[in-house]
Amino acid sequence: MTNLYGNAVVGQSGGPTAAINATLAGVIRGVLEINKNGGAIGKLYGMCNGIEGLMQERLIDLCEFSKDADKLDALELTPAAALGSCRKKLPKHADDPEFYEKLLAIFKKYDIRYFFYIGGNDSMDTVSKLSAYVAECGYEMRVMGVPKTIDNDLEGTDHTPGFGSAAKYVATTVSEIIRDAAVYTTKAVTIVEIMGRDAGWLTTSAALGRLANGQEPDLVYLPEKPFCMDEFIESTKKALEKHPNVVVAVSEGIRFSDGTYVGAGAQSGVKDVFGHQYLAGTGKALEYAVRDRIGCKVRSVELNVCQRCAGHLVSATDIAESVAIGRAAALAAEQGESGKMMLYKRISNQPYAYEIGCADVHEIANKIKRVPDAYINAQHNGITDECLAYLLPLIEGERYPKYVGGLPEQIIL
Amino acid sequence: MTNLYGNAVVGQSGGPTAAINATLAGVIRGVLEINKNGGAIGKLYGMCNGIEGLMQERLIDLCEFSKDADKLDALELTPAAALGSCRKKLPKHADDPEFYEKLLAIFKKYDIRYFFYIGGNDSMDTVSKLSAYVAECGYEMRVMGVPKTIDNDLEGTDHTPGFGSAAKYVATTVSEIIRDAAVYTTKAVTIVEIMGRDAGWLTTSAALGRLANGQEPDLVYLPEKPFCMDEFIESTKKALEKHPNVVVAVSEGIRFSDGTYVGAGAQSGVKDVFGHQYLAGTGKALEYAVRDRIGCKVRSVELNVCQRCAGHLVSATDIAESVAIGRAAALAAEQGESGKMMLYKRISNQPYAYEIGCADVHEIANKIKRVPDAYINAQHNGITDECLAYLLPLIEGERYPKYVGGLPEQIIL
Repeated sequence: MTNLYGNAVVGQSGGPTAAINATLAGVIRGVLEINKNGGAIGKLYGMCNGIEGLMQERLIDLCEFSKDADKLDALELTPAAALGSCRKKLPKHADDPEFYEKLLAIFKKYDIRYFFYIGGNDSMDTVSKLSAYVAECGYEMRVMGVPKTIDNDLEGTDHTPGFGSAAKYVATTVSEIIRDAAVYTTKAVTIVEIMGRDAGWLTTSAALGRLANGQEPDLVYLPEKPFCMDEFIESTKKALEKHPNVVVAVSEGIRFSDGTYVGAGAQSGVKDVFGHQYLAGTGKALEYAVRDRIGCKVRSVELNVCQRCAGHLVSATDIAESVAIGRAAALAAEQGESGKMMLYKRISNQPYAYEIGCADVHEIANKIKRVPDAYINAQHNGITDECLAYLLPLIEGERYPKYVGGLPEQIIL
Repeated sequence: MTNLYGNAVVGQSGGPTAAINATLAGVIRGVLEINKNGGAIGKLYGMCNGIEGLMQERLIDLCEFSKDADKLDALELTPAAALGSCRKKLPKHADDPEFYEKLLAIFKKYDIRYFFYIGGNDSMDTVSKLSAYVAECGYEMRVMGVPKTIDNDLEGTDHTPGFGSAAKYVATTVSEIIRDAAVYTTKAVTIVEIMGRDAGWLTTSAALGRLANGQEPDLVYLPEKPFCMDEFIESTKKALEKHPNVVVAVSEGIRFSDGTYVGAGAQSGVKDVFGHQYLAGTGKALEYAVRDRIGCKVRSVELNVCQRCAGHLVSATDIAESVAIGRAAALAAEQGESGKMMLYKRISNQPYAYEIGCADVHEIANKIKRVPDAYINAQHNGITDECLAYLLPLIEGERYPKYVGGLPEQIIL
C-alpha cells in the first residue's frame, strides 16, 4: 500500500464517555509517532462537534496542542468529548447527493486524507457511508472508525472503550449505595436505574461487588429479558424477608413482554434523530410499584449522566486501552486500512490479555450486541459468575486525574 | 476533674456520610491513646443502629477490631455508618420516664461511663437530653456529641465533619456534568438537584469550579432565599443567549415566597419522625417549567444519596479533621467534659488553620445555621467569592481508598 499523507482530521460523536478523550489523545500520539518514524502527515485537525462542525468547516489545528506532553496526559483523563460532539445521522447518498459533494469539497480544500471518527454504533454508520462514498468517487482518503460507548453494545469487539470506566463507576457507586442503604433497620427498597436502552451490559457491572467485598444488589434486571412486574414484586418481598435493605439494579430500557417500556409512563415522548425514544422514569415506575404493592419505604436513584462522565473514577485498564486503540487506528490508516472499525480481541482472562485489530465497518454498523444468555441467571433477575469473569479485567486498575484547587484538572481545547 | 474510667460506648445516628466512620475511627484511636498514656477505659462498645440498638442491648465489642491497624485505616475511608444508624427522636423525660430508666439500667449493667454520639442536629438533641438526664439522677457518665452532617448546618462550629467530602463530590460531579452538557450545540438546560432542606451549604459548593477550571453553574438557588419561577425562567433565557448549555444547581429545599416547596408537586406527603417533610422532585419541577415556558431540551439530575456516601471521592482535609475531632472527643471526655458538642474553630483561611474545641450542646441542638447573606449574590441566584474562600480549604486534598478487585475496600463491622 502506498503511503498517502496529506492532512488528517479527527472527530468525536455520540454521547460522552470518560475515555473518549483518551482515544483522541491516542490518535494524536499515533500521528506524532508516524511522523517521528519518517511519515509525513501534515496537519491534524480536530472537527468541532463531529461531522456537523466539519460541514461548517469548524476545524481546530491540534498540532500546537499536541506539543504539550502534560496537556496531552491530562486530556486522557478529561471526561466528555473535548472536541464537542453531535448526533448527526448521515443521509443515504441517493437521498442527498449534495451533502456528500459538499463534504468532498471540504476534504479536498483541506487536503484531508485521513479521517478518524470516534463514536458508537451510529458513528460507525457514518464511517460506513463515508468510506463507501469516497471509494466510489475515487477520492483517496482513509476512513477509520474508533469505537466508543459506555453501552458496550458494538458487534465485532470484545468490549468498547469507555465501558470499563463506566462499569467501574457503576460498580463502585452501587456498592456505596448498598452501604448507605444498610444503615437503617427499617425495611426499605432502593432501586438503582442504570443507562442501557437495548443492552444491559452496564447494569451487569452493578453485580461486580460479588468478587470484591460481597456487596451486590439483590436483584438485577436487564433489557435482554422481558420484565414481569409480578415476579419483581414477589422476588423483592422474598429478599425483604432475608434482610431489611433490598437493592435492585435495573437498566433504563427494560420492557414488558408486550414490548412496552416499563418506564413508558414517565416517558417524554420525544425521539432523537436516530428514532430512539427518550426514556426516563424506569426507576420511578418500579418505586411506585413497590410503594403500592409492598408498602415499605422505597427510593429510586438514577445514576444519570454521572455514569458516563465521571473522569474522577476511571478504570486504568480502560484508559490505557482507549489510548492504545486510538494510536492503533492512526497506524492502521497509515498502513493503508480504510472502512474499518478498530476492535479488541480478548486472548485470555487470567492473566488478562488482549490485542487490537480491525474489521470491515459495514459488517458492524447498526448491529447491537446484547448480553448473552449464559451471563444471565435462570430467573432472569441476576448475573452469573461467568459474566463477572468477563467484566472484572475491564474495571481493574485506578488512575487519578491531577487535582487543582480541590477539583480534577480538565482540558478544554 | 477525677479520672472516671469504666467502659465506653460509641454510636452513629442520622444520615450516612463519607466521613462518619473516620470520626468513629478517631474515637477508637482516642480511647487507645488514653489507655496507652495510663488511662483505664475498659471496653469500648459500639452500639448497633444508635440509641435504638442500645435500648435492645445490641452492642459489639470494638476492642478486638481496634487492634488491626490496617482495618482501622480502611474504616476511615469506608462510607456510611459502619455501626448502623437510626432516626430515633428521644422523648422528653417528663413524657416517658420509663424510657430513661431503662437506658440508665443498661448504662449501669455495662458500666458505661463514656457515651459518644456521632450525628447531626437531631443527634445533638439526644446528647442534650441524655446528658441532662444523667446529671439530674446523679449517674456519672460523660456524654459527648461529635457533629456529622453533609448539610453543614450545625450552629457553633465553623463547619461539620462530612461536609467537605460531600462538597468535593458535588463540586467535582457538577464540573463533570458541565463538561458533559457542553458537547452538543443544541440549546439545552441541565438542572442539578443537590441535598439541603433548610440550608444551602452543599449547593454553594457547586460553584467551586470558579476557583479551579472556570467551570461553574450559570445559576445557583438556595433555600435561604425565596424562589421566584419568573426570575428563574428569565435568568435561564438570558444564560441561553450567552451559550447553548446552561447548568443550574439547586437545593432540594427551595421554597416559593409563600413557603411552599418548589418540589411540592412531586412530594410524597410522608413526614419523618422529626416532622421533616420528605422531598423529591425539585429538579423535576424546574425541568417541567423549562420545558413548558422555554421549550428547549432539558434534563434534571438528582445527585441523590451518592453525594453523601461517595467514599471513593473524599476530601483529605475532611477525613483528617473527622478523625481528629473523634479523637479529641475521647480526650475531652477523659478530661471530664460532658454535655458538650465538639466543634471546629477556623483560625485563618490562608494558610488554612483550625483548632478543635467544644461547647455546651444544649445551646447548639435544634438550631440551624444557614448560608449568610454575604455568601449569596444580590440577585439571589449565585454564590459570592467570599463564600468560595470559606469553602475551598474544606475540599482540598485527595485521599483514595484501597481498591480490591477493582472496587474500593469497605470495612463491615
